[in-house]
Amino acid sequence: MGLREFFEPESIAVIGASREENKPGHVIFRLLKENRDNGTLKAKVYPVNPKAKELLGEPCYPSIGDIPDKVSLAVIVVPAPIVPKVIEDCGKKGVKSAIVISAGFSEVGNRRLEEELLTKARKYGIRILGPNCIGVLNPWTGVDTIFLPYFKVLKNGRKLLSTPRPKPGHIAFLSQSGAFATAAMDYMAGEKLGLRALVSYGNKADVDEADLIEYFGSDEKTRTILMYIESLERGRKVIEVASKVTLRKPIVALKAGRTKAGVRAAASHTAALAGVDEIYEAAFRKAGIIRAYDMEQLFDLAKALSMQPPAKGGRVAIVTDGGGAGVMTTDECELNGLIVPELTGEDREKLEKLKKEKIIPQFASLRNPIDLTGSATSEMYVESIEILMESKNIDLIIVLALHQVPGIEDPIELAEQVVKIQREYNFSKPIVAVDTGWSEAAVCTRETFDEGLIPSYSTPERAARVAAALYRYGNYLRKKGELENYLKKWHPAI
Amino acid sequence: MGLREFFEPESIAVIGASREENKPGHVIFRLLKENRDNGTLKAKVYPVNPKAKELLGEPCYPSIGDIPDKVSLAVIVVPAPIVPKVIEDCGKKGVKSAIVISAGFSEVGNRRLEEELLTKARKYGIRILGPNCIGVLNPWTGVDTIFLPYFKVLKNGRKLLSTPRPKPGHIAFLSQSGAFATAAMDYMAGEKLGLRALVSYGNKADVDEADLIEYFGSDEKTRTILMYIESLERGRKVIEVASKVTLRKPIVALKAGRTKAGVRAAASHTAALAGVDEIYEAAFRKAGIIRAYDMEQLFDLAKALSMQPPAKGGRVAIVTDGGGAGVMTTDECELNGLIVPELTGEDREKLEKLKKEKIIPQFASLRNPIDLTGSATSEMYVESIEILMESKNIDLIIVLALHQVPGIEDPIELAEQVVKIQREYNFSKPIVAVDTGWSEAAVCTRETFDEGLIPSYSTPERAARVAAALYRYGNYLRKKGELENYLKKWHPAI
Repeated sequence: MGLREFFEPESIAVIGASREENKPGHVIFRLLKENRDNGTLKAKVYPVNPKAKELLGEPCYPSIGDIPDKVSLAVIVVPAPIVPKVIEDCGKKGVKSAIVISAGFSEVGNRRLEEELLTKARKYGIRILGPNCIGVLNPWTGVDTIFLPYFKVLKNGRKLLSTPRPKPGHIAFLSQSGAFATAAMDYMAGEKLGLRALVSYGNKADVDEADLIEYFGSDEKTRTILMYIESLERGRKVIEVASKVTLRKPIVALKAGRTKAGVRAAASHTAALAGVDEIYEAAFRKAGIIRAYDMEQLFDLAKALSMQPPAKGGRVAIVTDGGGAGVMTTDECELNGLIVPELTGEDREKLEKLKKEKIIPQFASLRNPIDLTGSATSEMYVESIEILMESKNIDLIIVLALHQVPGIEDPIELAEQVVKIQREYNFSKPIVAVDTGWSEAAVCTRETFDEGLIPSYSTPERAARVAAALYRYGNYLRKKGELENYLKKWHPAI
Repeated sequence: MGLREFFEPESIAVIGASREENKPGHVIFRLLKENRDNGTLKAKVYPVNPKAKELLGEPCYPSIGDIPDKVSLAVIVVPAPIVPKVIEDCGKKGVKSAIVISAGFSEVGNRRLEEELLTKARKYGIRILGPNCIGVLNPWTGVDTIFLPYFKVLKNGRKLLSTPRPKPGHIAFLSQSGAFATAAMDYMAGEKLGLRALVSYGNKADVDEADLIEYFGSDEKTRTILMYIESLERGRKVIEVASKVTLRKPIVALKAGRTKAGVRAAASHTAALAGVDEIYEAAFRKAGIIRAYDMEQLFDLAKALSMQPPAKGGRVAIVTDGGGAGVMTTDECELNGLIVPELTGEDREKLEKLKKEKIIPQFASLRNPIDLTGSATSEMYVESIEILMESKNIDLIIVLALHQVPGIEDPIELAEQVVKIQREYNFSKPIVAVDTGWSEAAVCTRETFDEGLIPSYSTPERAARVAAALYRYGNYLRKKGELENYLKKWHPAI
């Protein structure tokens, strides 16, 4: 059985739908009902609770067997000891997919209870997500078992948006940690990253990373697969599956437990052995999995890899209106394995011609970075970037558009122009952008870039690091003899 | 002569105060006048322009000599060739401090003109900031020669905040790059970092890093000195001065031009030789200058070092409500030279007692990280942190307060409680906090921490890196035999 029902079910039963407002079983049912009522969720939703006749105005069923309809997904939020019995009920009802939210299994040493759950599930051919997880968020279909309300009401009565959901998008995020997954939701929503689906798989008694990579690897809407990992049990299988998927789409992994103390911390957390980091490093490299080394990078890379094609080589050109930022970008590019070559030959001649024609300033530096100085205008950027798009010596472009300089009169127009060039050239080379600061101008400029599928960042170094990842991924595909084929099939995620 | 007049002048003449709205000379005069009118700037302001009778309603003077008053600071915004003549006029007027905004000197090869400027200045004992700089922003006194208006008006008429000024605070920021300085202003304003003063010194014909470090080193309001450097000409002098200052307050430096290509980029930018990175690295270490390796880190470190005392040792305790984030923090701490020791002995016993008394959950992990799980409450944090503050085995505490988990009902109250503990213990150990995401709850929680002088960050790794810097700085002071003395004098910047 596949995993489709976890993400696109036709009907959902919430088993353990509680009347108590703060209980996960209540929140899950409420959010699903709200999504159904507002049209986001197309599936039917049934609360199961033997103690209630109705819940939030919906009739409640004593057990799943009483629901007068086919159920394609069961969300189980009952105390751990009775989960096996509930699975048995699900099996009899013909349910084939169940998310077990309930905790109290192998993560606290109850391995036998988890075994029992699994035996029941196998008996009826039910795929299990969890136990001890927060389940699934699919913003495309409205499936949302994340039992954290959008808002918190503080003790003084103030109501604060607390756990926003990211918009629909193309990043599939697989997280071993539920808390990290929810923190990530807030982070992604703020960074305006779109989610194909988020999956927290907890103890992974049944469905694990290998299954999920395979599923999202074949899913058309998924552009990038993101993973937060502490341990891999079926390591070989994961690598085998990932090796195939990375020929079609990028996988980015943040593996925690890199140090001895980190491994100990991970063991306390999930009762799983994080293992020697070098082995993971080598395995990831072999499978073409791009490794992120911190939380910020994980999402930075996801954004870039979802928007831009991999680079054909590691030669970067930098166009800037700030000399200092140009130097910082150059440093970080070179430190991350990219080359910032001095521009020579035809490229240089074309740029010198712009100078002669007074299109770019006399005191602009053309060696790379191309420093258009504080007198930079949109036109100068356009002319320079077009030369770089045509260049045979450049594989990747970083545009530093620090909006504060006086020359950039309309930074949003500048971003629009860069977006336009990238489309005219059909994304033939990746472009990454930077504008720093958090003023309205900075935020709007970055949003314009992002909406035009040019990933933008708030510091030079973040952009340089994602540029390096675009190169590393392209290099991996090239070594596998797949780069041309990949680029032929690649199209912007519009 | 000292540098005080650059930052706290009694009267300012803007020489080259233009009538054209977009010209730097106009913007500088306008902003100074506005600051004077709204009471921020206590100094008198005089426009000098031989072609105008009045400017923005103020009488204009043909030359500085015509101003019927003492002038303590001249801001010079005239074409480069006439700058020496203007300096001569300033000398005759008795001015002792001049900011030369004008470009067109050694940075474009006109070394002779810069020499001439300097000769004139020396003749009259005038200290020069610049040329080719954006000068000074002092939010405490309203001195603002940054010629970038707060707002940009886009082509469609939309008005966007573009170059906000950071609030008054305790970070002195010295930048070789003017564009980086303005980008940093926007960044700092967004991160709500307070500025003692920002100084862009451009070609540093006279006033250079050594002078500025000395000045802010003795300035009471300055808690941390931040530097963006591409090259140091008086390297030995800078190191000599910095060595003294770092015994009193931290200096953080971002040195660009770390790679060969970066050095080449820096040379194009400032015509200065960036030099071999290893030499800078060694010199910084010797002088106790803390090095930041990217823009984000520069400001992250400035924030932590301005708010918290240095750590007496490298042993970190982590308190978390998210296991995954705890692992990530542990990794990054250890990778940055900190130790995350397993809690044993008395500390462990006290924590186990909390578990027995059901104050913290039975399934909480107490080894370090202390994982309070998603059931964490403010009380649990308070009890755990108090034990850690008392502990003889812990030098530094990282509080991960991921507000999304259901247990944290009021994240702002939690932040307030942590702030309260830190005050009760009189900042006896540094505390750093994390909450992830950009929701209202995340932003308000971080603001509460920051306002209470507990530096907070949006990812675990950012917090771990600043924790490492608090340790490195403490370690430097300890080696110099100055740590105890430093801590005795240290007080929170309230």
